Amino acid sequence: MTTHTDARLQSTVDHVMALLHRNDLVESLVHAQKQPRQELVETIVHRQQLAALQNKLRRLHFADLAHVLEVLPLEERGVVWSLLSDVTRGESLLEVNDAVREQLIEATPRDELLRAIARLDGDDLVDMREDLPDDIFDQAMAGLADVDRDWVANTLSYPEDSVGQWMSQEVISVRGKQTIAEAIAMLRSLDRLPHNTDKIFVLDARGALSGMLLMEDLLLGDPARQIADVQRKSVVTFQPEDRAADAAMAFERYDLSSAPVLNSRGKLLGRLTSDDLMEYLHEEAHEDVLNIAGLLDEEDLFSNIRNAIRNRWLWLAVNLVTAFVASQVIDAFADAITQLVALAALMPIVASVGGNTGNQTTALVVRGLAMNQITLNNLGPILRKELSVALVSGLFWGGVVGLFAGAIYHHLMLSVVIAVALLLNLVVAALTGVLVPFALHRFGRDPAMGASVLLTFMTDSMGFLIFLGLASAVLI
Amino acid sequence: MTTHTDARLQSTVDHVMALLHRNDLVESLVHAQKQPRQELVETIVHRQQLAALQNKLRRLHFADLAHVLEVLPLEERGVVWSLLSDVTRGESLLEVNDAVREQLIEATPRDELLRAIARLDGDDLVDMREDLPDDIFDQAMAGLADVDRDWVANTLSYPEDSVGQWMSQEVISVRGKQTIAEAIAMLRSLDRLPHNTDKIFVLDARGALSGMLLMEDLLLGDPARQIADVQRKSVVTFQPEDRAADAAMAFERYDLSSAPVLNSRGKLLGRLTSDDLMEYLHEEAHEDVLNIAGLLDEEDLFSNIRNAIRNRWLWLAVNLVTAFVASQVIDAFADAITQLVALAALMPIVASVGGNTGNQTTALVVRGLAMNQITLNNLGPILRKELSVALVSGLFWGGVVGLFAGAIYHHLMLSVVIAVALLLNLVVAALTGVLVPFALHRFGRDPAMGASVLLTFMTDSMGFLIFLGLASAVLI
Repeated sequence: MTTHTDARLQSTVDHVMALLHRNDLVESLVHAQKQPRQELVETIVHRQQLAALQNKLRRLHFADLAHVLEVLPLEERGVVWSLLSDVTRGESLLEVNDAVREQLIEATPRDELLRAIARLDGDDLVDMREDLPDDIFDQAMAGLADVDRDWVANTLSYPEDSVGQWMSQEVISVRGKQTIAEAIAMLRSLDRLPHNTDKIFVLDARGALSGMLLMEDLLLGDPARQIADVQRKSVVTFQPEDRAADAAMAFERYDLSSAPVLNSRGKLLGRLTSDDLMEYLHEEAHEDVLNIAGLLDEEDLFSNIRNAIRNRWLWLAVNLVTAFVASQVIDAFADAITQLVALAALMPIVASVGGNTGNQTTALVVRGLAMNQITLNNLGPILRKELSVALVSGLFWGGVVGLFAGAIYHHLMLSVVIAVALLLNLVVAALTGVLVPFALHRFGRDPAMGASVLLTFMTDSMGFLIFLGLASAVLI
Repeated sequence: MTTHTDARLQSTVDHVMALLHRNDLVESLVHAQKQPRQELVETIVHRQQLAALQNKLRRLHFADLAHVLEVLPLEERGVVWSLLSDVTRGESLLEVNDAVREQLIEATPRDELLRAIARLDGDDLVDMREDLPDDIFDQAMAGLADVDRDWVANTLSYPEDSVGQWMSQEVISVRGKQTIAEAIAMLRSLDRLPHNTDKIFVLDARGALSGMLLMEDLLLGDPARQIADVQRKSVVTFQPEDRAADAAMAFERYDLSSAPVLNSRGKLLGRLTSDDLMEYLHEEAHEDVLNIAGLLDEEDLFSNIRNAIRNRWLWLAVNLVTAFVASQVIDAFADAITQLVALAALMPIVASVGGNTGNQTTALVVRGLAMNQITLNNLGPILRKELSVALVSGLFWGGVVGLFAGAIYHHLMLSVVIAVALLLNLVVAALTGVLVPFALHRFGRDPAMGASVLLTFMTDSMGFLIFLGLASAVLI
């Protein structure tokens, strides 16, 4: 199995693509699957390609295979999937992103799916739980040893994206009264160490965590000494209810590569490792972008249209309602527009600039909330700063817009009205941009979700109301 | 020094805030700094508070202190900063985010700044390079040992956010012809091991990397065996020119906690560790959100107004120009609007729904590009999917909007016009949403930068053009 850094992986992907498309392997295979007669596939050319492709795939690391599956359009993905062994399917299902996993699970016959996940362990099943159909999950659970089954049930009882769901069962502990030599002998007796074992945990007589030993402490320490005497007492620990996002921040802050998870009485429950948290960060990293734009979930780039629409319709519908409300604000000023049609042309400028500045503020606030940087304590200064920026920007850009509008329409009061309206709408944008995500966060909602739609609603309808209202009062 | 997971850190922040604000310590200190007479500060009450605060701060881990600095408004931040020792200032400067680092460096007198960074090592100086004034950086460089100075100069010669800039100098290597016992003896002779040492690297006779040993191989292996015989040959390696983002993906993919960085001839240059890459991911994680919204850089939540405006004016200016263009599209149809003022009320709906769906597509594409999932090879299927979604959504939502518009304005052809215009604008949105970020990426630009402004420009102006153009042709 070979591993690839990204530039090299790209050429593998290109190669797989090329193999798939030489003589249109995809089409003939998809075609063959639909028809019982397989002559097309059975031609020698195709068999050679198939063998070359299978060979290429077999040499890939599971994680690389997952990437290949992610970047392949649906039909090509199906062909590659059909060439994989059961074990490989199970392992690469673990590695693909949620959206692609969902698609693959949906597209795989139930008996094949069961065979694919039959070899996975408890931690793996936890990772896949929410994407597996209930009965498939139950059957896979039935195949686990009792202790693993208990682990899965326990782990799944913790909240989503909590440390409890991301911790691993594989953890090594020693007793404080053992010597270093005894600890090494114990390690030697193990089949293999859990991946990324950089430290082992020390338990006291009651089974509670009392400290840790780095691997180098074992390697370089005096074998005869008692562990209780040489252990490091300062350990960053987590509880299963802690948020995975906070744990990731703590890992980064304290340069950890693994850490123990304890229950409230100090008993060792499991282990968190940096690779799992990197996976979490990687998954969450760009999720705000999706949520702010009004997508409910991560989406397979090639998902079928039904899934894509299901993922998007809710915020589109909200947007439609809010757009109608904004439209009715305009409708209320129909008379003014008939008398001065320039109002219709200028009003989207007020709305658009308001929307844009508001989005800038929202982005900062959503990010600050994600990093635990915004609390009730410092909300005041943040609001003050955003309002100040809005006032200064509003005076300047309002003036610029006023000048341009004046130059185009030769109407002094119209210039003044649009300048003032723009200034006021920037104030609305700053207030909305800070307070909407903050309020969502306070009420336990995702502050990013649909933020852009809600913000634009405010800046559009208030923009129209302020501009047309002022214009009606002053000009008409 | 105590470490905190996030919930516990929050209470520390609250405590610091409370200390700062009891009897308005901040105001009196800021006041005292401006005035030579310090009676106010010298009152016993204030001295007690100051001592309590300093005590609290001294017990914090540098990384926690950095978080406290990040969440404090400017004046409070200044007070806390003034209480820190030089060494603590240097270490916490390293840990704060770029925007806050910039603010602190700006606010600190040059001689104090020099003292603060005097104790930092080469790797640390590389991290801070772009925020330090040139002459301060040069003076700090002059204080380094020759070998460190060379390291800094070399490292800075690699591109921004490349592996070269994120790798660390601290790396342990052994020769293949040594025995395990000799390697252990060598480790024992070191003052301390680099943090997160989970493996050491094996070099061949020419000094090129030939493999690696996990710490457990040293611990559990036969001391008499030659390293060349027991080393693990399959090593994920990086080159200094690789992108840090790709390295982070590879770390996650292959569950790494450290990896060697080699030059093109296989010579060991340095070491990448997962904690550094987590820091990178953490910094970059939410950056797309900022860029899509049209912010140039990360921004201190409490930055002064000048900095905030500097960070935002460019895309605001672009937005203003594009909004004017869209406005002139409307202006060209002034006659039609005068004849049927409902057009003015309905046109923002077409623009708004187009903007929202386009933002959904852009968010997906920006994310896919960040994860290396979109290439010329699979652009076709992605575009096809987005266009299909746009057509289906457009037919459905166009119909809904048409019905509503018909119900409000009792005008059949107006219903048909807005339905068709909405459908067409969703197609524009899908095309723009995919192609703009993809094109920016192909030309080596950040695909997220200002994406929202460019997208809205297209959906606004095309939305107005399609809707008003159709209406003029059919209705007027």
